[in-house]
Amino acid sequence: MQQKMSENGAIPRQGKVLTVDTMNANVKKVDYAVRGPIVQRAVQIEKELKEGVKKPFDEVIKANIGDAHAMGQRPITFFRQVMALCTYPQLLDDNKFPEDAKNRARRILQSCGGNSIGAYTTSQGIDCVRQDVAKYIERRDGGIPSDPDNIYLTTGASDGIVTILKLLTAGEGLTRTGVMISIPQYPLYSASIAELGAVQINYYLNEEKCWSLDISELQRSLQAARKHCNPRVLCIINPGNPTGQVQSRQCIEDVIQFAAKENLFLMADEVYQDNVYAKGCEFHSFKKVLFEMGPEYSKKVELASFHSTSKCYMGECGFRGGYMEVINMDADVKAQLTKLVSVRLCPPAPGQALMDLVVNPPQPGEPSHQTFMQERTAVLSALAEKAKLTEQILNTVPGISCNPVQGAMYSFPRITLPERAISEAKAKGQAPDMFYCMKLLEETGICLVPGSGFGQREGTYHFRMTILPPTDKLKLMLNKLKDFHQRFTQQYS
Amino acid sequence: MQQKMSENGAIPRQGKVLTVDTMNANVKKVDYAVRGPIVQRAVQIEKELKEGVKKPFDEVIKANIGDAHAMGQRPITFFRQVMALCTYPQLLDDNKFPEDAKNRARRILQSCGGNSIGAYTTSQGIDCVRQDVAKYIERRDGGIPSDPDNIYLTTGASDGIVTILKLLTAGEGLTRTGVMISIPQYPLYSASIAELGAVQINYYLNEEKCWSLDISELQRSLQAARKHCNPRVLCIINPGNPTGQVQSRQCIEDVIQFAAKENLFLMADEVYQDNVYAKGCEFHSFKKVLFEMGPEYSKKVELASFHSTSKCYMGECGFRGGYMEVINMDADVKAQLTKLVSVRLCPPAPGQALMDLVVNPPQPGEPSHQTFMQERTAVLSALAEKAKLTEQILNTVPGISCNPVQGAMYSFPRITLPERAISEAKAKGQAPDMFYCMKLLEETGICLVPGSGFGQREGTYHFRMTILPPTDKLKLMLNKLKDFHQRFTQQYS
Ligand SMILES: Cc1ncc(COP(=O)(O)O)c(C=O)c1O
Ligand SMILES: Cc1ncc(COP(=O)(O)O)c(C=O)c1O
Repeated sequence: MQQKMSENGAIPRQGKVLTVDTMNANVKKVDYAVRGPIVQRAVQIEKELKEGVKKPFDEVIKANIGDAHAMGQRPITFFRQVMALCTYPQLLDDNKFPEDAKNRARRILQSCGGNSIGAYTTSQGIDCVRQDVAKYIERRDGGIPSDPDNIYLTTGASDGIVTILKLLTAGEGLTRTGVMISIPQYPLYSASIAELGAVQINYYLNEEKCWSLDISELQRSLQAARKHCNPRVLCIINPGNPTGQVQSRQCIEDVIQFAAKENLFLMADEVYQDNVYAKGCEFHSFKKVLFEMGPEYSKKVELASFHSTSKCYMGECGFRGGYMEVINMDADVKAQLTKLVSVRLCPPAPGQALMDLVVNPPQPGEPSHQTFMQERTAVLSALAEKAKLTEQILNTVPGISCNPVQGAMYSFPRITLPERAISEAKAKGQAPDMFYCMKLLEETGICLVPGSGFGQREGTYHFRMTILPPTDKLKLMLNKLKDFHQRFTQQYS
Repeated sequence: MQQKMSENGAIPRQGKVLTVDTMNANVKKVDYAVRGPIVQRAVQIEKELKEGVKKPFDEVIKANIGDAHAMGQRPITFFRQVMALCTYPQLLDDNKFPEDAKNRARRILQSCGGNSIGAYTTSQGIDCVRQDVAKYIERRDGGIPSDPDNIYLTTGASDGIVTILKLLTAGEGLTRTGVMISIPQYPLYSASIAELGAVQINYYLNEEKCWSLDISELQRSLQAARKHCNPRVLCIINPGNPTGQVQSRQCIEDVIQFAAKENLFLMADEVYQDNVYAKGCEFHSFKKVLFEMGPEYSKKVELASFHSTSKCYMGECGFRGGYMEVINMDADVKAQLTKLVSVRLCPPAPGQALMDLVVNPPQPGEPSHQTFMQERTAVLSALAEKAKLTEQILNTVPGISCNPVQGAMYSFPRITLPERAISEAKAKGQAPDMFYCMKLLEETGICLVPGSGFGQREGTYHFRMTILPPTDKLKLMLNKLKDFHQRFTQQYS
C-alpha cells in the first residue's frame, strides 16, 4: 500500500482506479440492444447527413424504438393542458383552458407539498394519484378491488421492473434466484438480470403459433433451470414486445396455475394494455384473471404488474411515469420495498401527474371529453391500420415471414438469410441479423434492431421494426426494405 | 421439487415466494433515516389532526427534509414559464410569455425527438442541455474547459451517485470495494453502499472545528479499512449535508492530493453549490481546484461531481433533474457507463429541461433577467438570514450547541441528553436522539431527523433541522424547540 516517489518527488502515475478490469463485473455483462451499436451508428449517420455527406437517402428513419412522439405522434391535448397548468399555476386564471383541465390540475397540486409539483412527493407516490390508479384498475378489471396501498408510482415501468427484480435476487450458486423470461424478450429484463447477478432462464415463445406461450415449454425451461439455480420469478410481457402477440385468457389462466404450482412470483409487464388491434384479441390483465380463478389463487399467487405513460395512445415516454401494483406481497417485504424506494426520494412528480391523467381521463359530460376521445381513437386506429399494413407488406417479400401484429407497437418478422451472408457475418464476428440490419441502415437509412438483441431460437433470424412511423412513411419504409431484402438476397446467393 | 396434492386435489398452500428471509439480503441492510419512522409517524399525526384528534399543536412542521417548495418557497417564474411552454407549445403564441422564455423553450424542443418533451431522449441526456451544462461549468470554474461528452444528465443527483457507486463496486472479501464517506453523512450514501454490498468506510468530520475535514482522519480511516477491504472511493459532500460546513480551498486541495496519493476515485457531491451564506466562505468546485493544481493532478485524478435541480435557489425537487461530470474516466469504462444508463432509457425530459434553465438562466439584457435575479437573490438572502437565526437561537439553549450554518440547508446541533433519558431510550431499543425527536414530534409537531440517522461519534447526540421554513415559522419552531428541550432536560434530570 506504500507509494513510491519518483526522483523529482512527484507521485508516480499509477493506473486508473476504475478500469474495465476493476469495475463491477455484472455491469460488464449487461447488453442493451435497443440502444446498441446500430443506434449509435444511426446517430452518426444523422450527423454526417447534416454535415452534407452524400448518402443514398435523405434521412434516417428510426424504427428501432417505441417512441411515438419522436415518430411524429402528437400529444393528447388535455394531458398537456393539465401538465402546463400544474407547472405554471398562474395559467389557472387563463380562460383559454377548459374547466376540467383546471380541476385536475388543482386536485393534483393540492396533493403536492406546498401545492408545487416542484416538491418531493412521498416515496410511494402522490396519494391522490395512487387512489386514482386503484380506481382505474377496479374499472378496468370489472370491479375487482384494488388497494392504493398496493400501488407504487415509478420512474417509468423500467424502474418498477428493476426494483421488483432487485427484491427477488438472493442466494448464491445453486440457490441463486433464477428469473424466467420469454425469448424473444424486451432487453431491459436480460440487462437487469445481468446487472443484479441473477440467473436468466429462457423460455421460448412459439413463433409457429403466433408467438404464443406454451405451458410445456415453461415446464421444460423450469425443469432444466432447477439443476443450476433457484427459479423464483416468471416474467410475462403482454401484449408482447418485441413479438406483438396478445395472450388469450386461457393462456393467462394456465400461466397463473403454473406459477401457483411451481411457487413462482409473477411479473406481468402490461405497458401495452391499450395496444390491441387484431380481431378476436382482447387485453386481459393478470390481476383480473387471477382474481377470477378464485381464492385458492387470488389469495396465494404473488404478482407485480406494471404500467407506464410511455405507450398506449399517449406515448409520453419523456415524462417517465409509471406504476406497479403488488398483490399478495408479504407485509414485511412491502415495508422493505417502501424503504428501498425511499432511498431515491421519489419518482418525478410530472410523470406522476401524467400517470394520474392516464388513469383518470376526461369523463363523458366534461368539456374535454369529446376531443380527448377523438384524439385517442385516432391514434389507436392508425396504429391498428399500420399493424395490418406492416404484416401485409412484409409477407409479400420472399424470405420474410411475419406473424400478425396483434398488439403492442412492433413487428418481429423472420428473415431467411443466404448462407454466404451468414458466413460473412460470422467472419466479422457479427450476428447475422446484426450484419443485415447494419447494411440496411447504411444503404437505406432505416434503423431497426436485429433479432439477436432480443434473443431467438438458434439458427433463426429476425428484426424488430416499430409500426410507429406515419402511414405514408411506413409504407415507404416497408417498400425500401422489400427492395433491400431482395437485393441483399441476390447479392449473397 | 415435486408438489404434493392435498386430498381434494387442490394445490397445497406453500409459503410466499418472497419473504424477508428469502429476499435480497443487501436491501434488508439498507437504512434511510430521512424518510424513516419519524417521518412515518409525522404523516400519521397529520392524518389524526385532520380527523380532529386533539393535540397540543395545530400542524406538523416538517423540518426533516430539504424540500424548499414544500416549505412554501415559490418557484422561479422564468423556469416555470419555460417548462409550461415546453409542455404545451401552443402557449408559444401567447403574448403573456416573455420572448426569452419562448426562445429557451423552442431551443429545448428542437433538441427533442419530434420536438416533444414526451419523447425519450438520448440516454446520456439531451445534447443541447449537456452543451449548456458544460458551458456553465466553464463559466463557474473560470474558464477551465468542460466537455459535453463528460456530462451525463441524471434523475436527480441521487441517480448519478448510485450509478457511479455501482460501477465502482467489485471484488469479494478483502478485495471488496470500500467507499469512504463522511460521518455525519447524507444517508443516500450508506444506503447505496449497503444495497450494492460495498464496504462503508467512515471518516469523521471535526465538530470542534466547525465540521471540517482533517486529512489525518482520512488517513486513519483509510489505514484501518485497508485491513479488511479495498478502499477505492472517497465521497465528499460540499457544502455539507447534514452539517452545513463549506470546505476551504486548502482543504479541497489536500483532499485531492490525498486521493491522488492513495489512488482513490473522488466523488464530489456539490448539489448545494449556490448555498453558501457565511462570511469568508466561498464555494470551490473540486473540478476547478483539481485543474488549478496542474497536470500532475488534472490528468490523473478520477473525479465525478454531481449537481441537481433540487437545491440552491430553485428547490425544484419534484422534477428530479441533475447532472454529473466525469473527469479522467477511462474511455472503456465510460462506454460501459453509457451502456448502463441506456438500460433505463433516459432521465425524465422535464427534469433535463429544467436543468438546462438552471445552467443557462436569463442573461443581462433579456426581458426576464431582472425578475429572475430578484427572485434568486430573495431566496438566497432569506436562507442566509435563517442560517444565522438558527445558529443564534439554538446556541441560547443550555444543552444545545450549534456550529455556524455556513452553507447548504441544515443545522446539525449537538444536544446534551440526561442519563435517565439515555437509559430509557436504550431500554426501549431506541437511539437516544431518536427517542428525543419522537417525543419532540408528539409534543410539538416538529419533525426532525435524529443524528443517529446520519451517523455521529459514539456517545454524542444531534438532530438535523432544515432552515427552510419561512422566517416567522422558523422562529416559532426554534422557540418551541427551546421550551421542549428545557422541559425534556428537567423531566429526565
Ligand atoms: C415491454 C416493455 N416494458 C417496459 C418498457 C419500459 O417503459 P418505460 O418508458 O415506462 O420505462 C418498455 C419500453 O419500451 C417495454 O416495451
Ligand atoms: C448531499 C445531497 N446529495 C444528493 C441529494 C439528492 O438530491 P436529488 O433530489 O437531486 O436526487 C441530496 C438531497 O437532499 C443531498 O442533500
